[in-house]
Amino acid sequence: MGRRLFAEFLGTGLLVAVVVGSGIAAERLSPDDTGLQLLQNSLATVFGLAILILILSPASGAHFNPVVSLADASLRRRTGTGLPVPLAAGYMLAQFTGGIAGAVLANVMFDVPTELATADRVTTGHLVGEIVATAGLVLVIFGLIRTGRATLVAPAVGAYIGAAYWFTSSTSFANPAVTVGRMFSDTFAGIAPGSAPAFVSMQLIGGALGLAATLILFPAPTSPVR
Amino acid sequence: MGRRLFAEFLGTGLLVAVVVGSGIAAERLSPDDTGLQLLQNSLATVFGLAILILILSPASGAHFNPVVSLADASLRRRTGTGLPVPLAAGYMLAQFTGGIAGAVLANVMFDVPTELATADRVTTGHLVGEIVATAGLVLVIFGLIRTGRATLVAPAVGAYIGAAYWFTSSTSFANPAVTVGRMFSDTFAGIAPGSAPAFVSMQLIGGALGLAATLILFPAPTSPVR
Amino acid sequence: MGRRLFAEFLGTGLLVAVVVGSGIAAERLSPDDTGLQLLQNSLATVFGLAILILILSPASGAHFNPVVSLADASLRRRTGTGLPVPLAAGYMLAQFTGGIAGAVLANVMFDVPTELATADRVTTGHLVGEIVATAGLVLVIFGLIRTGRATLVAPAVGAYIGAAYWFTSSTSFANPAVTVGRMFSDTFAGIAPGSAPAFVSMQLIGGALGLAATLILFPAPTSPVR
Amino acid sequence: MGRRLFAEFLGTGLLVAVVVGSGIAAERLSPDDTGLQLLQNSLATVFGLAILILILSPASGAHFNPVVSLADASLRRRTGTGLPVPLAAGYMLAQFTGGIAGAVLANVMFDVPTELATADRVTTGHLVGEIVATAGLVLVIFGLIRTGRATLVAPAVGAYIGAAYWFTSSTSFANPAVTVGRMFSDTFAGIAPGSAPAFVSMQLIGGALGLAATLILFPAPTSPVR
Repeated sequence: MGRRLFAEFLGTGLLVAVVVGSGIAAERLSPDDTGLQLLQNSLATVFGLAILILILSPASGAHFNPVVSLADASLRRRTGTGLPVPLAAGYMLAQFTGGIAGAVLANVMFDVPTELATADRVTTGHLVGEIVATAGLVLVIFGLIRTGRATLVAPAVGAYIGAAYWFTSSTSFANPAVTVGRMFSDTFAGIAPGSAPAFVSMQLIGGALGLAATLILFPAPTSPVR
Repeated sequence: MGRRLFAEFLGTGLLVAVVVGSGIAAERLSPDDTGLQLLQNSLATVFGLAILILILSPASGAHFNPVVSLADASLRRRTGTGLPVPLAAGYMLAQFTGGIAGAVLANVMFDVPTELATADRVTTGHLVGEIVATAGLVLVIFGLIRTGRATLVAPAVGAYIGAAYWFTSSTSFANPAVTVGRMFSDTFAGIAPGSAPAFVSMQLIGGALGLAATLILFPAPTSPVR
Repeated sequence: MGRRLFAEFLGTGLLVAVVVGSGIAAERLSPDDTGLQLLQNSLATVFGLAILILILSPASGAHFNPVVSLADASLRRRTGTGLPVPLAAGYMLAQFTGGIAGAVLANVMFDVPTELATADRVTTGHLVGEIVATAGLVLVIFGLIRTGRATLVAPAVGAYIGAAYWFTSSTSFANPAVTVGRMFSDTFAGIAPGSAPAFVSMQLIGGALGLAATLILFPAPTSPVR
Repeated sequence: MGRRLFAEFLGTGLLVAVVVGSGIAAERLSPDDTGLQLLQNSLATVFGLAILILILSPASGAHFNPVVSLADASLRRRTGTGLPVPLAAGYMLAQFTGGIAGAVLANVMFDVPTELATADRVTTGHLVGEIVATAGLVLVIFGLIRTGRATLVAPAVGAYIGAAYWFTSSTSFANPAVTVGRMFSDTFAGIAPGSAPAFVSMQLIGGALGLAATLILFPAPTSPVR
């Protein structure tokens, strides 16, 4: 169990370090074009997220996201193979602490002080964006698992986030632990603590919708028909 | 059948949401360089389209495109395993309504009103571009299927569109349902309703040419020779 | 045989259409930054080249390049399974005519006249670049084939060219048929006819060096040791 | 053994040629935006590094990096299948000489004189960055190998570096042979000789940490559990 929690801590931490660190690099190196910054930030995240899932999935399943852990526990309970509640709680604790540690690590690497972020991100459009982003993420992960294609989760989640950075207005946080971690760097990827509860709430709603869509589209775990 | 139509509606809708939404993000964030906007828009589409096909192909085949459904029905009729006409009609209805819903979703996420687009896109070069773009798309999809490589359709179509955004002058709509959806957002990816019929006509011609090329190159369904 | 030549004509033609067409789009849409143009041009080529090889390799082997056809014929002769000389000649004819047709197609799509290019590209550094670019290309293709990994040629060649556009000073033409095709569009990707013979000569030298490196590194066709 | 050393020399050399050459191209073509230069440089490296590992791994294992060779020798000694010391020494010699040769090749292709670089890169943040970058690299490589997924090393290392260029403040040298090679070009990717020892020291520390993390997460070589 320690090994699994270490993997969740490390993976979530490095994910936040990738998001925050590449955001700092982007805003420093391309100061004149926010879109170019987001392109750099999003491509680094595509690569980094896919690799973290790839490497660490044999150790812990590579959730790195409380919504994913909740959805996983919920789905498995239906089949009687559920993640026990203490382990799910441990996963989430590891994810939140990892997320914060990752922001601090990025700050240290870029010689930036660790401060609470000031970027207020709540708008109606952004909240809808978070619902869509998280629903899509859950559908991608569990749609693949339920069709016998778990080995594709790593590149698929990376690619999905590469699209979601751009097509959702909120740039697709889609992850409560990453949201909390991003509160601790007042830089490109930061989010003001006052915006976090609304974002997390929408992520939970999106997760539930994504799970519902998964069960409608793939009612029984099965191999692909094609 | 409901599940298949839901998958087509959802997939086409999210595809249009990706194209329109990332286009709005791009023009807002990189206002000074249209090429950079198209780079952001095209990369988001590469990622999003590949993932949508990957996730939803076990549910419906992931056509998301009336030209693909028509080509599929036509090819299967030759072998007596054709998509029944009512199902093909259902697919197309789901694709067109999904396409419109996707544009509305993008508008909501970005706090943009849903209005008819005003971008007139008809030029001789663009019409040739749509023929080429759609012919290529059909060749990619059915060339892979007829050589026993259907599992590669998702990344291949994503990559193909990533090239076609740039090498066809029209930025490769190549899809009547996406064309109709893009009429409903007066933003970067929009197309004026007056331009849509010509685009759709060229897409149908391109689809037929692509099907002909597929049958010439891969006269019988087979496994790869290499 | 007609089917194979058609595949070589089509593939080389579309490859040149991708290179020339995306170059025109790039210089029109991002007029202020040549590097951004090359980024757009190179990414479109990565996607397009990989897809063309993927789709058409079951039909013809997807050479699209006289240097590759020559190397293939040469390697196979060593094992007595050589491409017969008339077929090799047919391949090259299809490649050169396809390359020219592709440039014309790009010109038509972008409403550009078909004129001889005026960009003189010969410098000492560029000539060394073409040798390196072509040697690397041949090593990638035949290194994979000789280690039993021919199915990876499509994405590998795409990725290789994505690097070679940037790390060789010449932007990696690495293909006599593409070089000739690019003479017929006086746009971003064009090359003046006066520069073509030197480029093609270097490509032939590079091809020979690449073949030598392949034979040193992979002396016998084998399966991978790792 | 000669074949293996040639592969290490060639691979490390071309890797440095990719890094240095694409850096020169980037700073020439996009002179106004350092971030855009790094995007071009990093994407070229993603493609180039993945391909070099892919092609040459059957010949030598495709280390191209003294830290990787040391980690490999160390891990194998634990299981009694260690790389003999003379071969490990030969690998490193090939890597360092290859790295220098690659910088010279890039300089020749771009008509740049071979001079010692003047870019001082030592800051506290950068040194932390090198530790993180190298630890992550070692974890990626040996995490995959110990879970029976060695065939994924090539794309995974490419993608990892694509993230690490951006999320580590030092742009992720993570390789002593590449660090030394990059001393020999006073261009975008250069590093002043005075900065190299500190970078290499941090890489060795990072390599040891990465190895420790690998052994904690994957205590016994095994097949993936998922």
